[in-house]
Amino acid sequence: MIRVGVIGYGYWGPNIVRNLQGLDSAQVVAVCDRIPAAQKRAKHAFPSVEVTSDANEILCSPNIDAVAVITPVWTHFELAKAALENGKHVFVEKPFTSASGQAEVLIELAQKRDLKIMVDHTFLFTGAVKKIRQLIDQGELGDLYYYDSMRVNLGLFQHDIDVIWDLAPHDLSIMDYLIQNEPEAVVATGETHLNSHADVAFLTVYFPHNTIAHINVNWLSPVKIRTTLIGGEKKMLVWNDLEADEKVKVYDKGVRIGNREGVYELLVSYRSGDMWAPKIEQTEALKVELAYFLDCIEKNETPFNDGVAGLRVVKMLEAARESLKLRGETVLV
Amino acid sequence: MIRVGVIGYGYWGPNIVRNLQGLDSAQVVAVCDRIPAAQKRAKHAFPSVEVTSDANEILCSPNIDAVAVITPVWTHFELAKAALENGKHVFVEKPFTSASGQAEVLIELAQKRDLKIMVDHTFLFTGAVKKIRQLIDQGELGDLYYYDSMRVNLGLFQHDIDVIWDLAPHDLSIMDYLIQNEPEAVVATGETHLNSHADVAFLTVYFPHNTIAHINVNWLSPVKIRTTLIGGEKKMLVWNDLEADEKVKVYDKGVRIGNREGVYELLVSYRSGDMWAPKIEQTEALKVELAYFLDCIEKNETPFNDGVAGLRVVKMLEAARESLKLRGETVLV
Amino acid sequence: MIRVGVIGYGYWGPNIVRNLQGLDSAQVVAVCDRIPAAQKRAKHAFPSVEVTSDANEILCSPNIDAVAVITPVWTHFELAKAALENGKHVFVEKPFTSASGQAEVLIELAQKRDLKIMVDHTFLFTGAVKKIRQLIDQGELGDLYYYDSMRVNLGLFQHDIDVIWDLAPHDLSIMDYLIQNEPEAVVATGETHLNSHADVAFLTVYFPHNTIAHINVNWLSPVKIRTTLIGGEKKMLVWNDLEADEKVKVYDKGVRIGNREGVYELLVSYRSGDMWAPKIEQTEALKVELAYFLDCIEKNETPFNDGVAGLRVVKMLEAARESLKLRGETVLV
Amino acid sequence: MIRVGVIGYGYWGPNIVRNLQGLDSAQVVAVCDRIPAAQKRAKHAFPSVEVTSDANEILCSPNIDAVAVITPVWTHFELAKAALENGKHVFVEKPFTSASGQAEVLIELAQKRDLKIMVDHTFLFTGAVKKIRQLIDQGELGDLYYYDSMRVNLGLFQHDIDVIWDLAPHDLSIMDYLIQNEPEAVVATGETHLNSHADVAFLTVYFPHNTIAHINVNWLSPVKIRTTLIGGEKKMLVWNDLEADEKVKVYDKGVRIGNREGVYELLVSYRSGDMWAPKIEQTEALKVELAYFLDCIEKNETPFNDGVAGLRVVKMLEAARESLKLRGETVLV
Repeated sequence: MIRVGVIGYGYWGPNIVRNLQGLDSAQVVAVCDRIPAAQKRAKHAFPSVEVTSDANEILCSPNIDAVAVITPVWTHFELAKAALENGKHVFVEKPFTSASGQAEVLIELAQKRDLKIMVDHTFLFTGAVKKIRQLIDQGELGDLYYYDSMRVNLGLFQHDIDVIWDLAPHDLSIMDYLIQNEPEAVVATGETHLNSHADVAFLTVYFPHNTIAHINVNWLSPVKIRTTLIGGEKKMLVWNDLEADEKVKVYDKGVRIGNREGVYELLVSYRSGDMWAPKIEQTEALKVELAYFLDCIEKNETPFNDGVAGLRVVKMLEAARESLKLRGETVLV
Repeated sequence: MIRVGVIGYGYWGPNIVRNLQGLDSAQVVAVCDRIPAAQKRAKHAFPSVEVTSDANEILCSPNIDAVAVITPVWTHFELAKAALENGKHVFVEKPFTSASGQAEVLIELAQKRDLKIMVDHTFLFTGAVKKIRQLIDQGELGDLYYYDSMRVNLGLFQHDIDVIWDLAPHDLSIMDYLIQNEPEAVVATGETHLNSHADVAFLTVYFPHNTIAHINVNWLSPVKIRTTLIGGEKKMLVWNDLEADEKVKVYDKGVRIGNREGVYELLVSYRSGDMWAPKIEQTEALKVELAYFLDCIEKNETPFNDGVAGLRVVKMLEAARESLKLRGETVLV
Repeated sequence: MIRVGVIGYGYWGPNIVRNLQGLDSAQVVAVCDRIPAAQKRAKHAFPSVEVTSDANEILCSPNIDAVAVITPVWTHFELAKAALENGKHVFVEKPFTSASGQAEVLIELAQKRDLKIMVDHTFLFTGAVKKIRQLIDQGELGDLYYYDSMRVNLGLFQHDIDVIWDLAPHDLSIMDYLIQNEPEAVVATGETHLNSHADVAFLTVYFPHNTIAHINVNWLSPVKIRTTLIGGEKKMLVWNDLEADEKVKVYDKGVRIGNREGVYELLVSYRSGDMWAPKIEQTEALKVELAYFLDCIEKNETPFNDGVAGLRVVKMLEAARESLKLRGETVLV
Repeated sequence: MIRVGVIGYGYWGPNIVRNLQGLDSAQVVAVCDRIPAAQKRAKHAFPSVEVTSDANEILCSPNIDAVAVITPVWTHFELAKAALENGKHVFVEKPFTSASGQAEVLIELAQKRDLKIMVDHTFLFTGAVKKIRQLIDQGELGDLYYYDSMRVNLGLFQHDIDVIWDLAPHDLSIMDYLIQNEPEAVVATGETHLNSHADVAFLTVYFPHNTIAHINVNWLSPVKIRTTLIGGEKKMLVWNDLEADEKVKVYDKGVRIGNREGVYELLVSYRSGDMWAPKIEQTEALKVELAYFLDCIEKNETPFNDGVAGLRVVKMLEAARESLKLRGETVLV
């Protein structure tokens, strides 16, 4: 039984507590939030859990094995550092940290103390992303041409970060998980309309072997869109996360370009076959992820979404921030 | 009655001839194409029209008042120049020319000779774009925040130009028509997979007053998408050109950000009201455009999609080409 | 504060308890279910509520003011009757009773005792149905031509009733609420494939003034569909309950038929204008309904979805059952 | 080369002429229409074809081998009869005739004269219906449970027939082709709002072995819907004829009902697997059908959509008309 303390009970924290309480291998011992209303909500929903306004009660408690840091990103470093220094495993909300230097410190600290860090890249535990990864690993799509994602809607403005730091970590972590290669360069464009942070932004990430990724994030869209196109040499797919049933559609479509000898014009031939929507596992991703976190602690294994994976995402966010400031200058990663 | 010669009878040429033949104020006198199969098709479809393989027969004919140049872009300049020098009005396929210098020469030449140039930005004559322009002019949307368009599908590879020069002129001309302001800078990213030209590309155009435009073009998408989001201060809209009926949906949605006195956090309030899909005129856009071309000639008026409008698009295409080559460096327009 | 006892804690019961607990004017005192697993779930979710396996504990308790009967339809009569006889108000799951005679007994009993009966026609409290009713009452649609609903998917087979008694009460109560007229005749067709009860069925209800209603219910559909077309003299609408945002779309479309004097052929003219999706209230319907139930008790007012409304639905279900047995013979209501 | 005369050049006639002209094995010799405007349109579109206002010129011409009767249904019998009596093969628009007795006369006449009759059930030649038939014949769906079709929109009112005779022949012929069994009984309900004929109607057809078909036709729908659900013992499919690409979706979904020994409740188990959209042939159905007609004549073979198939549809239409008049009484076929 792993005893967990949860710091931060705002929008996402309640989901963490609820899912941990549903797992046999965990027990939520304490919840911390500075805001009285959040404390009240936590007490009402989980009467048996201790609720505090002081993070140190969790960070220093001898009765806690692991800490979940579900707070704004600028607080991640201090909280996670204190937790690790007190010998506790850490589950951190995405993005991992505000700066790559902070992430490196935490990774080193965890390694020295033989503790686990897991960054909450929840989407990697959805049935859809797992199925897409499986299709890629089985060679169904062939070499990857592009990853193109749109993640837009109206609502949930953040005050301390821009739309890239808020929404792009989802796609950056998915892209990192699917493309399985080091990015070469990042280009980010965008604009600020209502606040001091960009609310509309477009991100391109260049990878080796002509693979390109593109992420469209927007807090000001009248409609909600969560659609990703993934094109490969052999097949292509569309992942629409808003579809209830057929989230992933695989198209047996392609194009082949040949050169007839001595002929100036290229020969293009299109292939168009069946479409296929594989059955997607429906389990709640966060539950699967938290069970995996507990499992990694118990078996002393390194999670694939560890601090190093979190650092890769932070590096791309930093590059994007720099590029955005320069109105799209290319920034090498 | 304006007598027209049409040069180029490939994919688009037949639509030009068919629509001109349906107008009372025009008569198609001759059609030219170098390829025998195209000549055969033209003869079969329009037995009464003269068909030739020699463009000069049209360019020099004393019986022709206007020439439609419906050929690959790299031939536009020579053909349009010859037509103007022979005293003929010119209707040119988009993009106007391969280089802005060429466009400037043509514009000057037409001005001197008092001839009309019209660039075939067909979308400006669709019911959808006309309705959107009307909503903007009436102040329905308020100040424009962004124009974000996706124009992707599988098929119709071009051999002599990249996907930006092929597909983006549509959006660049629409954006130019709707935003009604001079672009400041262009950023283009993209990748080449099958050919020597980019087949996937993403374009950002910066405008004054924080207006931003973004265009996503892709020859390698498994699905056809033609969706544009336009966000304004007051309202936002979605234009889905593939919808049969409700092409334009206007959302009474918005966000307002205030600052409570002495309070650190911003106050965000969302507004969400009705959605409204105005009735869209269904007339074939090309027919409306060609009628307008003939009308401008007869009334000696300058079309709004004249050479100058075409030049604006070519300048953005040139900037995009340069930016794309440098993997997204910002290029001032 | 109204003290409520809930009998039946299967699929729907937990929603009743949760919503009642969220209302200030109610207190759930006891929950009853015969099945041990259900009792366990109830205890776990609501530790402060008494859980019993004996309905009489609720029916006879002096500390209970109102009873919610959330059990299979064949038990409704006995339970509701006992509750009324013990002086308790009754909230009954739909359909009201297994037979119209039972409904009449309950209505009379409640009247004598001055107690309230409310039948759980939840859909009448959704934002969508309330908006449609408002459009009808304001004359926006004009005279009603038809109500045509499709309610199909795979899953949730019932063992004791057919697909009409299971799914059609939703549409019958909505239709009753919107058309506001007495039905004249019912025709039901359908077929049984897997069980002894029909799993696919089609229901037509004839109303005065040429209004017709049609309900398509199916337990064996590969896809979930919840779409209702409502056609009126002036306007028509589509209600798609599975749409997240634009649930109700009102079409300014119509047809007018005239007779030119002395001319044999009719003159048909179509009208096609804007489409409009009004903002729909998002509050959970069951919560609104239960608050209304408590309110009716407190103010001693008769709910519009009372026993009499429930009886009208049961009569149509009885007619449908008879018609279905005869493979579609017309049954007068 | 088969010489064809086409009688009737209204809405559908031009498609017949255009497709026949595109086939090498046919030559349209003459077109007849009583209305001057139609004659003018025919002359303009097909300058080489003789145009007449007198059907007898076609019916009696020694230079014509086959006659296409593309006129209102009440004229089919006289025209087809005359054509057959003059030794000509006949292609007749659907529905075949106004009455089954007429159909029987024509069938007998054709048989005596060794002539072909083909009824224009165009949908049987679409890629979608051919693919569905293939899936059924291969046993992919298992035993058929139901065929449920919706065919509604606003527009194209007919003055001489009701909505069943206008729209249902499509589904009746498809259903006949797919179910491959004799119908037992028909139930039709519907209502008349604007005219003397029903404009909204619902049709149920009972088949042996618990197969049931249902057809929903409506001239007064604000939206166009062309969706058919087909449920089988093993798999189920949705055919949406308005989808550009994925017209047919096959669902690996099902339900199995068992009986645990000695247990009251039935055991229901649902199966939910992949969805699969097979590639559908895109050739224009009418072209394929007309080529088949010519082929049957040349090879002296009986088309599967012959007069007997047309008669089966007319019999169901007659039964539907009778049932509709009686507000849904069951009519045995």
